[in-house]
Amino acid sequence: MGGKLIVFEGVEGCGKTSQMQLCSNWLKSLGISVILTREPGGTELGSHLRSLLLESENKPVAEVTELLLYAADRAQHVEQELKPSLAAGKYILCDRYTDSTIAYQGYGRGLNFKLIHQLNDIATTGLESDLTIWLDIDVEVGLSRKRKDEAKLDRIEQETIAFHQRVQQGYAELAASNPSRIVRVNGSLNKETVHQMIQDILRVHLKGLL
Amino acid sequence: MGGKLIVFEGVEGCGKTSQMQLCSNWLKSLGISVILTREPGGTELGSHLRSLLLESENKPVAEVTELLLYAADRAQHVEQELKPSLAAGKYILCDRYTDSTIAYQGYGRGLNFKLIHQLNDIATTGLESDLTIWLDIDVEVGLSRKRKDEAKLDRIEQETIAFHQRVQQGYAELAASNPSRIVRVNGSLNKETVHQMIQDILRVHLKGLL
Repeated sequence: MGGKLIVFEGVEGCGKTSQMQLCSNWLKSLGISVILTREPGGTELGSHLRSLLLESENKPVAEVTELLLYAADRAQHVEQELKPSLAAGKYILCDRYTDSTIAYQGYGRGLNFKLIHQLNDIATTGLESDLTIWLDIDVEVGLSRKRKDEAKLDRIEQETIAFHQRVQQGYAELAASNPSRIVRVNGSLNKETVHQMIQDILRVHLKGLL
Repeated sequence: MGGKLIVFEGVEGCGKTSQMQLCSNWLKSLGISVILTREPGGTELGSHLRSLLLESENKPVAEVTELLLYAADRAQHVEQELKPSLAAGKYILCDRYTDSTIAYQGYGRGLNFKLIHQLNDIATTGLESDLTIWLDIDVEVGLSRKRKDEAKLDRIEQETIAFHQRVQQGYAELAASNPSRIVRVNGSLNKETVHQMIQDILRVHLKGLL
């Protein structure tokens, strides 16, 4: 039996990292083999690309270049990590995937949606998430969490509030158009409550498996 | 008046570097403003990508990733270097461009031609060379030149002879299908003769300008 690809999405400070860790602990307690990974940067090559993409010291990256680098990171991640782990029956918890590119580069930065979809298709060779958890939180609350935690913000986190609000709008539209794949969770509730909601969602969506 | 994009192509050891230098010196002696550049690695970001692509110490790069990284390098080069230099009326001498991807990744490595063309189009946004000089040299002669000069061979140079022969075949087919854009020069003649032939070709193709 194959594994499952479960993606966590949301704006900065939505709580992905904590929730992925809680979810991983819970799945492991059920005897399931779990992989925690992320995009960009889920492979050795990807970690170099992540630095090029996110370190704000770097010179401006052209818009098309940015899309191609995210796609390169994703293609390597899919081939080297996701497909082999799924084939080995593992549950993958992945921090960001194709919907992030649509939300951030498409809605946030206003890049060409057709090109984004074309590159998502090339990079994934059709591999979709089995389930995507969208942690929905108010943009300003999320950013203030992030800014409290981290002395240094990356290139994306430094964008304007208006940018992050367009990204949020993108997630809302993606969730509305993909109701069976993307499930919204209220990320502003306390950590343990959010975790319980995620457990319930996984039990429903992966019924018979948990 | 706009500049010109003149690309030098050919298998390893075909003499691109020397001929580009001679051509640059000659054009400068005519009072023309010249830029020497290359792919991959024609920009600061591209130089990082060049290392990821060519350093043989790196872990295997998935085939689609490789194409996306070449495309990212090219997109950045086109936006940051080629388009502004052309707009400023400069003559660009560029070591490898879109035909290299078709010859090496398409013919050499057998990757999907449709995908290569799609990514070339995305990366260049339609910018073609005004003239491409193909320095045609026997594969084994070229590689032996290269191996004499350099202690350490990169990932491409380490490929088999059969690989480089497929690349050579690719250049022959590209030249046959694009007779007005790609001009073959016998790269096995002596350096000064090759340079004179390139001068003649440029005078014909860029008539009125030189």
